[in-house]
Amino acid sequence: MTVSMYKISVPIFVQFLTSLSAVLDKAAAFAEAKKVDPSVLLNTRLAPDMFPLVRQVRAATDHAISAGGRLAGVELPTFANDEATIPALKERIAKAIDFLKGITPAQIDGSEGKEIKITFPSGQTREFTGQSLLLNNALPNFYFHTTTAYDILRHCGIELGKRDFMGTPVQM
Amino acid sequence: MTVSMYKISVPIFVQFLTSLSAVLDKAAAFAEAKKVDPSVLLNTRLAPDMFPLVRQVRAATDHAISAGGRLAGVELPTFANDEATIPALKERIAKAIDFLKGITPAQIDGSEGKEIKITFPSGQTREFTGQSLLLNNALPNFYFHTTTAYDILRHCGIELGKRDFMGTPVQM
Repeated sequence: MTVSMYKISVPIFVQFLTSLSAVLDKAAAFAEAKKVDPSVLLNTRLAPDMFPLVRQVRAATDHAISAGGRLAGVELPTFANDEATIPALKERIAKAIDFLKGITPAQIDGSEGKEIKITFPSGQTREFTGQSLLLNNALPNFYFHTTTAYDILRHCGIELGKRDFMGTPVQM
Repeated sequence: MTVSMYKISVPIFVQFLTSLSAVLDKAAAFAEAKKVDPSVLLNTRLAPDMFPLVRQVRAATDHAISAGGRLAGVELPTFANDEATIPALKERIAKAIDFLKGITPAQIDGSEGKEIKITFPSGQTREFTGQSLLLNNALPNFYFHTTTAYDILRHCGIELGKRDFMGTPVQM
C-alpha cells in the first residue's frame, strides 16, 4: 500500500460529491414536505457576500474536475452554469463524478511535480506543481464548498448529520 | 518530489490551524469594535443541534492532533476542554501547532498501512489503516470543522474572505 496522487484525489472527490448529491436529495424532500420552493434553498447564503447554495455546489464540482483533469492532462468538461433546480445540480454532480471515474490512477500518479499553469477568468495566471494544486488549492477549496453547502442546509433546518457529509469511502 | 503521508497531513494541519488562529484574531477585533461579548461568538451555532464555534475549533485541533500523533505513534497532548475565551482557544491552537511541528517526516512516512485502533469516549472502537484514518476521517473532519468555524463567523458578520480561510502554505 502506498499513498499516491490518485488516491488522495479522485476517490475523495467521488466520495464527497456522492454524499453532496445525497444531501441534496434530503433538501428536496424537505422542500416538498414543507411546501417550500426549492429555489429558496438554492439561493440561501450564510452571509450577504458569500455564495448561495447553488454556487457552493458548482464550486465544489469545479475544483474536483479542475484538479482531476489537469493532473491527468485531459480536457475538462464544461457546464452552462445555469442550474436552477436541485435535479439540475444533481445532474452536474453526476457528470463530474462520471468524468472523475473515467480518470485512471496511471494518468494521475507521478503528477506531483507536474507544472500546471491556470488562467483564471480575470486573465490572471497562477503556476502550480501538481502537488501544490491538489494539496494547497483544490482539496481545501473542495472541502470548503462541500462543507458550506452542508452548513447552509443545516442552517435552513434540514435534518442532516455528520454521516451525511462524510458519505462512504469508495474503493477505486 | 514525491507525495507522502507527512506532506498530506502535518503541513496542511499547520497551515489551516494557523489561518484559523488568525481568523479568531479578526473575531476578537470585531467583538471589541462592536462592543459584543466574545463569548457570544464562541457560542454561536448555525443550527441548534450543531456545535458552537468553540467546539468547532476544539474539534479541528483534536482531529489534527489525533491523526498526526497516531500516525507518528507518539503520545497525544491532552486539553482541559474548558476554553471559554478567544485567547484560550488560540492557546489551544498554538499547542496543537507546536505538537505537530515536533513530528518529523520520518515518523509519519510509510504509515499508510499501519493498523490504528481508536477507542472513542463511548467505548466503541474503530479500526483504521494509517491511510484510511487520514484520508477518510481526519482530513475531511478537520476541513469540516475549520470551514464551519469560518462559516459561523461569516454568518456573524465578521469581514473575512477566502484568503483568511486558506492562509499560506507552509514549507516543512
